[in-house]
Amino acid sequence: MSGSEEAGERVGPIAHGGDLDAAAALFPHAEQPWIDLSTGINPVPYPCPPLEASAFRRLPSRADLQSLRAAAAEAYGVADPDRVVAAPGTQILIETLPRLRPLSRVAVVAPTYGEHEAAWLRGGHAVTMVSDVEAAEGAEVVVVVNPNNPDGRTWAPARLLDLAAGLAARGGWLVVDEAFIDLEPAESLAPRPMPGLVVLRSFGKTYGLAGIRLGFAVTDPALAQRIGEALGPWAVPGPAIAIGRAALADMPWLREAALARHADAMRLDRLLACRGGRVVGGTCLFRTAAFDDAPGLFRRLGAAGIYVRRFEADPRWLRFGLPADKGEWCRLSRVLKPA
Amino acid sequence: MSGSEEAGERVGPIAHGGDLDAAAALFPHAEQPWIDLSTGINPVPYPCPPLEASAFRRLPSRADLQSLRAAAAEAYGVADPDRVVAAPGTQILIETLPRLRPLSRVAVVAPTYGEHEAAWLRGGHAVTMVSDVEAAEGAEVVVVVNPNNPDGRTWAPARLLDLAAGLAARGGWLVVDEAFIDLEPAESLAPRPMPGLVVLRSFGKTYGLAGIRLGFAVTDPALAQRIGEALGPWAVPGPAIAIGRAALADMPWLREAALARHADAMRLDRLLACRGGRVVGGTCLFRTAAFDDAPGLFRRLGAAGIYVRRFEADPRWLRFGLPADKGEWCRLSRVLKPA
Repeated sequence: MSGSEEAGERVGPIAHGGDLDAAAALFPHAEQPWIDLSTGINPVPYPCPPLEASAFRRLPSRADLQSLRAAAAEAYGVADPDRVVAAPGTQILIETLPRLRPLSRVAVVAPTYGEHEAAWLRGGHAVTMVSDVEAAEGAEVVVVVNPNNPDGRTWAPARLLDLAAGLAARGGWLVVDEAFIDLEPAESLAPRPMPGLVVLRSFGKTYGLAGIRLGFAVTDPALAQRIGEALGPWAVPGPAIAIGRAALADMPWLREAALARHADAMRLDRLLACRGGRVVGGTCLFRTAAFDDAPGLFRRLGAAGIYVRRFEADPRWLRFGLPADKGEWCRLSRVLKPA
Repeated sequence: MSGSEEAGERVGPIAHGGDLDAAAALFPHAEQPWIDLSTGINPVPYPCPPLEASAFRRLPSRADLQSLRAAAAEAYGVADPDRVVAAPGTQILIETLPRLRPLSRVAVVAPTYGEHEAAWLRGGHAVTMVSDVEAAEGAEVVVVVNPNNPDGRTWAPARLLDLAAGLAARGGWLVVDEAFIDLEPAESLAPRPMPGLVVLRSFGKTYGLAGIRLGFAVTDPALAQRIGEALGPWAVPGPAIAIGRAALADMPWLREAALARHADAMRLDRLLACRGGRVVGGTCLFRTAAFDDAPGLFRRLGAAGIYVRRFEADPRWLRFGLPADKGEWCRLSRVLKPA
């Protein structure tokens, strides 16, 4: 995993944001309560509908699962729900894909979310990290995160579709992880059926409900069925089905969330610039900036009880999630504003 | 899958109980509402504690997961929590184990829950169905469900530990699926550390909360870690962690549940005998009985809105879960009592 761009302090195979226990271990005397800005999860969650007891009690039925897939298809502009697979989080889809192919040459466009490289390596494939999709020549599988985490790079649909067509012609796959696309102006490839194209969509980040574990793959129906079989029956918990179905159908909430989070992201950029941050990019759920003394700022933030994301590959970078409310904005401003 | 004992009407790879949509398709004019006796899930669920919003919102932390593993270790009599892996349901553990071994000769003690055979076959292993553990000679992996589903057969711990020792000596595994052991007098192997022994424990059946998806493997720490890595980070949803932690610590509830369900099981046996059923066995969450005209009884029950489990391998068998309340007992009695 020496090539991974995601590993900060290493706890287990890959360290991720969102683990406040790790933060507390690093900063035992930090201001309380912790403000967790180390993830890209919407801090204003979808208001969960009251859940029926049966969601907890019954095994999810095939009809339950099909209605969730239909809701996702509708939300993602996919004409055929048979192209949609639901999973308990995108992570398990990232783990599953490498098991559904013979050993292949895989190119991951980097720097990006570290679990892609890790999963293909665990599956025994030959993995190269490349700087852009054009550098992936000769690969049988190309993985690109669009928009990218942590730098927010995006790729035009036409460019990715060309790449997918080339890969498909030799039995390859293009995996496009659109984990952060819901609230962005970028155009999703989910509505575009194409052999060998696998689009991943995350639920928990956009809807601020990362705990329920819900994600989707959109691909051709034959591969969708193979992924579904690999996940086995009852892979998605009842509460996640009920919440996902309701939230995915609520387009007005999504539009409001996009507007509000874009305003937050712009506010965060101004704040980071104040402190000498050069914003590298991001999405409206996180902003990545370079600082002359990023390690020093990381420590000052940590001491103030604010946990942000570091990157082993580029120690000048820090990634900031969005503060949840006025109190969190105030505490962040206090540390970031020049004295 | 021609050797599977679980396949009733075939919907997808293996048909399972619990899918009332399948029942409704078979009996479109059935009495309403349906009584689902096709599973072995406790009809009186654990009273869920109120869940904190953070269980839905935050990614489950390592500390959350560790506290769940500690609660399971305590409940299952396991001294070392590092021997416990938590998963989103036992099914995914059944799917995962075959991927963690080189291709092996696998013996599954049958008739039993069909997903074991199916998962090892999907993993490319050579699978034989055997009638008892002694017939598994030459196998590198033996799978036994104890107590067994659907017939309730049990194996003495000493016999299974001998078998495990023999398998371990040649690098093999003994997989003991104790999905139904919680409420039984049978002795679990979970507290007995032994190389190559993998014990599976199910949460949803005992606690009547199959929808949340929670199960555990108990094995040696090295294999436990490999299973955990295969499941990836955040495999268990936040609500399942919160509910599991509370329920597993509640021993008084478990004792009461065992007494109440045993009384129910005895009542069900009497009712089945009334109708000419010869009880084959079962656990206190389901009873399996042979009938001279099982297909006819299945149809009469279905027409009355009561869905039970059939078995392809033995068409004389029907498996009955427990009715949930007085109304359900009455409706079942009406169909089962001789006219």
